[in-house]
Amino acid sequence: MREPILLTPGPLTTSLATKTAMLKDWGSWDHDFNTLTASVCSDLLAIAHGTAEHVCVPLQGSGTYAVEAAIANLLPRDGKLLVLINGAYGKRMALIAHTLGRAFSVYETEDDQVPEPATVARLLQEDPAITHVGLIHCETSTGILNPLSEIAAIVHAAGRKLIVDAMSSFGALDIDVGQLHAEAVIASSNKCLEGVPGMGFVIMRREGLLASRGNSHSLALDLLAQYEYMQSTGQWRFTPPTHVVAALRMALDQYLAEGGQPARLARYQRNAAVLQHQLQQAGLQLFLPTARQAPIILTFRAPAHPDYRFGQLYEAVRNKGFVLYPGKLTSQETFRVGCIGAIDQAELEQACHAITTTIRELGWTTQGN
Amino acid sequence: MREPILLTPGPLTTSLATKTAMLKDWGSWDHDFNTLTASVCSDLLAIAHGTAEHVCVPLQGSGTYAVEAAIANLLPRDGKLLVLINGAYGKRMALIAHTLGRAFSVYETEDDQVPEPATVARLLQEDPAITHVGLIHCETSTGILNPLSEIAAIVHAAGRKLIVDAMSSFGALDIDVGQLHAEAVIASSNKCLEGVPGMGFVIMRREGLLASRGNSHSLALDLLAQYEYMQSTGQWRFTPPTHVVAALRMALDQYLAEGGQPARLARYQRNAAVLQHQLQQAGLQLFLPTARQAPIILTFRAPAHPDYRFGQLYEAVRNKGFVLYPGKLTSQETFRVGCIGAIDQAELEQACHAITTTIRELGWTTQGN
Repeated sequence: MREPILLTPGPLTTSLATKTAMLKDWGSWDHDFNTLTASVCSDLLAIAHGTAEHVCVPLQGSGTYAVEAAIANLLPRDGKLLVLINGAYGKRMALIAHTLGRAFSVYETEDDQVPEPATVARLLQEDPAITHVGLIHCETSTGILNPLSEIAAIVHAAGRKLIVDAMSSFGALDIDVGQLHAEAVIASSNKCLEGVPGMGFVIMRREGLLASRGNSHSLALDLLAQYEYMQSTGQWRFTPPTHVVAALRMALDQYLAEGGQPARLARYQRNAAVLQHQLQQAGLQLFLPTARQAPIILTFRAPAHPDYRFGQLYEAVRNKGFVLYPGKLTSQETFRVGCIGAIDQAELEQACHAITTTIRELGWTTQGN
Repeated sequence: MREPILLTPGPLTTSLATKTAMLKDWGSWDHDFNTLTASVCSDLLAIAHGTAEHVCVPLQGSGTYAVEAAIANLLPRDGKLLVLINGAYGKRMALIAHTLGRAFSVYETEDDQVPEPATVARLLQEDPAITHVGLIHCETSTGILNPLSEIAAIVHAAGRKLIVDAMSSFGALDIDVGQLHAEAVIASSNKCLEGVPGMGFVIMRREGLLASRGNSHSLALDLLAQYEYMQSTGQWRFTPPTHVVAALRMALDQYLAEGGQPARLARYQRNAAVLQHQLQQAGLQLFLPTARQAPIILTFRAPAHPDYRFGQLYEAVRNKGFVLYPGKLTSQETFRVGCIGAIDQAELEQACHAITTTIRELGWTTQGN
């Protein structure tokens, strides 16, 4: 049987070309590898419409490492972070601030509700101690798209700084770091850029990064130290995940060849449309209103049948060649289907067929399904 | 031209089989991947002769991340670390303790001198505040082998705890975590195990880890949280470097097939012997006395010719297909040659030929060369 297709929001299905780029060992001290790193960072910066004022600093580890590093560096030790929460990744950002011992407050909305820009404005006005606002662009818990540009405008008008966790949107949704006046945009190799997991990166205002000396709680996660070392030597400060970086270079080549962000978004929108249309036809309902659903990962309400078990659905659909993702809501039974990765409508149609066939085979269809 | 052979202490030259294991995408939530992770941890534990009292916790990132995590978790916030330093990695461990705001002191010897067990005993006796001792097993700065078992016995007798950075020795030199009474042994995927870079791991006494709650300064680097999450779900807490883990599994299969640690050590000893013999014949001198030189990476004094430049040697030898490593000593001009990786005597002989030919071609031979 072929390897299953991952309908998960990273790690995801990557192209064979991307994986094949890992069939070479690179010396981490070698100029060829330094050139590779520099070209990756330069392309990532360009995707975010970075200007001469911005830098891209890569970091070994998962995306969460990059989020922790960005908060540790950019939030001064006497700063205060307002975290906008409507899912697990917003909660995680608050937990990072808590673990780091930094002051923070939260504005939490329901999983299917976005933060109100007017409320953010009021909270910033009421608490002058708040120096930074943290926002998850697309909250992978549900796939909800948060109103980035509206919030960014409010934060900028209030004279505060914005830290954007764009982990699952970067590369697919347009992000203009300068226009947003964002202090930092954080993402990783293995989401919409379709690389393999093992590195994150933070795109920042250079001035903000240079002002962060002494803020980091960690040697390994210090973005300023990584930046300065890379500036002076061209090398990563500690051993880089060389094969992961090479795979990202190859993934970026394919990204650019496909047509960059607009083309990537269009493909994911087609993928999401297939999922939504075909599963709704089979009686499955989207958890979110369509207008709030990003074309990254879709949350569906589970079949209303009393015998429904996600584990059974997962196994049966996996045996048909597709890996689903569990729901992350405590309030109700859901499952998630990613539509990102090196996949197109054809794979999504096959996946929908596998899901609907499984539900029928397991007898979970209810009236109207 | 073929890809150059890396004579560097990680990233290093891996086998094609190891790299080919990365040609598959794994769902990080999938039971197949959980099984893979569990088998990797179990094998790593066995290599360290771990017992039921020990656990192996993997961590995303480079080896330094794992060192920082081990110190952050295992050194209580009111503990004190004595770091034994004879090179860059000892200094780095002290810098980690400093960055974390933990109390520490150092016992530093020259780059070519090992710490005296009697001195360690005296230091522990003189300062009852010291709770832990940090030792670099093989200091990659020079390749010097530190007296692990002697120091371990002293530390245990003094009722203190030992943290061993075994980054560049693990898998090649025998380490028995129980016999050493070590609190932690830290290593990574991309040294003597011959995997690719992107993950580290810490082998610990379970009791020590369980007692570390609240010690970690970091969310991402919290080994206890990683352990507990993995225990309850089988999964990594944050996105794992799936391809790197799969490559390590394949590298471990080859490690076991080769005959495990004794066979790995024997091959590296043969490699080191070729290097030492052939380069000494060409008039190049080992920096360390042979008895202190681990068969991992060898430091040679540069040719005594006034025109010698490492950059020139590097480029010329690279053009012949071998990547060398610069020296890391400030006191004198040296270069390093790794003898680890998926290479055997044949490659080392070719490398020696490339080095000696280059030195002759560049006219750096002096009398006696």
